[in-house]
Amino acid sequence: MFFQGMLYFDHAATTPVHPEVVKAMLPYFEQIYGNPSGVHRLARQSRQVLEESRERVASCLNVRPEQVVFTSGGTEAANLAIFGLAYRGRHIITTRVEHLAVLQPARELERRGYDVTYLAVDKNGRVHPDQVASCLRYDTALVSVMLANNEVGTLQPVAEIARRCREKEVLLHTDAVQGVGTLDCDFESLGVQALSLSAHKLYGPKGVGALVVAPDLELSPRLLGGGQEGGRRSGTENLAGIVGLARALELALADRVERAARLEKLSEKLYDYLLAIPGVHRTGHPTERHPAIVSVAVEGVAGEALLMELDQAQVAASTGSACSTATLEPSHVLRAMGVPLTRAHGSLRFSLGRSSTEADIMKVARVTRLAVERLRELAPADLRGT
Amino acid sequence: MFFQGMLYFDHAATTPVHPEVVKAMLPYFEQIYGNPSGVHRLARQSRQVLEESRERVASCLNVRPEQVVFTSGGTEAANLAIFGLAYRGRHIITTRVEHLAVLQPARELERRGYDVTYLAVDKNGRVHPDQVASCLRYDTALVSVMLANNEVGTLQPVAEIARRCREKEVLLHTDAVQGVGTLDCDFESLGVQALSLSAHKLYGPKGVGALVVAPDLELSPRLLGGGQEGGRRSGTENLAGIVGLARALELALADRVERAARLEKLSEKLYDYLLAIPGVHRTGHPTERHPAIVSVAVEGVAGEALLMELDQAQVAASTGSACSTATLEPSHVLRAMGVPLTRAHGSLRFSLGRSSTEADIMKVARVTRLAVERLRELAPADLRGT
Repeated sequence: MFFQGMLYFDHAATTPVHPEVVKAMLPYFEQIYGNPSGVHRLARQSRQVLEESRERVASCLNVRPEQVVFTSGGTEAANLAIFGLAYRGRHIITTRVEHLAVLQPARELERRGYDVTYLAVDKNGRVHPDQVASCLRYDTALVSVMLANNEVGTLQPVAEIARRCREKEVLLHTDAVQGVGTLDCDFESLGVQALSLSAHKLYGPKGVGALVVAPDLELSPRLLGGGQEGGRRSGTENLAGIVGLARALELALADRVERAARLEKLSEKLYDYLLAIPGVHRTGHPTERHPAIVSVAVEGVAGEALLMELDQAQVAASTGSACSTATLEPSHVLRAMGVPLTRAHGSLRFSLGRSSTEADIMKVARVTRLAVERLRELAPADLRGT
Repeated sequence: MFFQGMLYFDHAATTPVHPEVVKAMLPYFEQIYGNPSGVHRLARQSRQVLEESRERVASCLNVRPEQVVFTSGGTEAANLAIFGLAYRGRHIITTRVEHLAVLQPARELERRGYDVTYLAVDKNGRVHPDQVASCLRYDTALVSVMLANNEVGTLQPVAEIARRCREKEVLLHTDAVQGVGTLDCDFESLGVQALSLSAHKLYGPKGVGALVVAPDLELSPRLLGGGQEGGRRSGTENLAGIVGLARALELALADRVERAARLEKLSEKLYDYLLAIPGVHRTGHPTERHPAIVSVAVEGVAGEALLMELDQAQVAASTGSACSTATLEPSHVLRAMGVPLTRAHGSLRFSLGRSSTEADIMKVARVTRLAVERLRELAPADLRGT
């Protein structure tokens, strides 16, 4: 879909808010604005809406309402999971390809004296459940493995890892920010004890997310104050945002299976087109992948330059994750996968969404081919591939 | 103003979002939705709006843009100030009447081995700058004193405390959540090094706030991840919320002085009416007070029961702060002020706002008198005052 003339292929970075989500949120700005912690009827009305929204979110993920802790987004949810469950031991296991919202808290715990195991991944970006199982210790507080990688789209075998963790009674958190709304995220089927999600990745508003936890799991809070969210996350609840999250989740699940199938077909086609360009390589797992993420590395071209060319041609894409593109460093994910530096520098992510059409795919492929050819002509010879 | 038939006198708990704020936010849901961390033009456009909003907020508080750290609200801002500056020493000074968003982090630091001095307040809820000065130590990391008390409205002599702190080169944070938008909050005039604010207290949306810090002040981040907000607060920026905060602040400052004068007159009138009811006592400072907060303690009546009576009569008010009303415990603020328990249990807060009129004040006073009389008739004799 065109917007401001742009073809938007950066849905993994963020999505527009669905019109029905905006509509659902609107009454909670000027009309039903009470503070859910109050006593009078405007406050009670807000509290009721809050708890109804919690029920709706819970129902989407197949959990009980009290398992849902609303946060300000995916980063806060992941931070709450890592820091909030670290009290259970002195050892954390995670992977080298996690989002920084998991890796940075892990590094912070390391600075505080925790042992942290950063699991290696194979060339497709995947960890093996055996690796996790072999690292579990009596003092392991938590394992954190993402559901779908935000940069390359590789899926992790979370359900199987969960089974191995349960055998040793170790908790598993999954950063499902990139998965919820597109992948099956039934909490019970996944078998995890904590799951992070973010509204703005699934056509909800920015500034709201949730951590879903196993029943009765003690969580050490990160935001301290009035004791909202059952003491697990203080701060006046972002009611409009929470209503938006609930509506966005419902809308996402309503057509999830068909949409995922459609996106998978479209993205496979885009892969076909892109991989036909000489020196273009797939960087994620060929089959165990997020249906909407197309990730490639282009030899002899700088990803940033490629993005600017695409931008000129009205295509919005991304290199690495949106969170780290500003740094210009090669992605930690691609490095962990062993992608050669000359390729990693030419990494490119197209992420599809509801609006993506087959015509868009063709345009994106054509524009990319032209951009690659043009940049290679300009590039000094020593950058032309390995 | 009536809404759903209610007279809303709980603006200190939260405010409706100003229609112009909603209007300002709307484009950032469906149209300008890019992730500010991206590279393409939709992302750059979002980043530009983000930085413009930061400039606007900075300008409202008389600081430079880089001094503004956007957060998910007042609680996160206060937590960031306390935890984020604690590295500077082993001792924290605060007061017994702070909001829980300051007190709970202080208690957490105490559990971790910090010394925490909780300053006593006088019967009007005020600390004296001399008290602060006499408690400053070589290892004092931070002093945190609120600008205006959320329950009783008492103003603290923050500028004078700041002067005393500067003499010893100790940092001062002020929780200005209840003050910004109504009181003068020029950062430089206050002379503090950190200031917390929240949008939803000033006709902005819930779920967004800011911590304003002195230039180049090193802040240890609480939310770790993609490194947004100059590494001080990770997580995709809540662009619509941030735009809403900027607009709300501008609107609040546009008529701040006249509005504050009007509210002060109205609230003084409400005090006059309420204090004329036998056994009703003022609980905040008689002159150094927030112009929109009317706080009283009613002898021989339970505050909760009073609130329910008022609610029946279509008046929305509060007892203590919205954050702690659910607990039914006597307010820590009133206890610190030495309010006798029989009075503290009958505490009542009316907080005025833009919509409050003189007619509303009269109705509220009339309804309160009737409710008090009715409840006293029902109450057992042993509850009738000291």
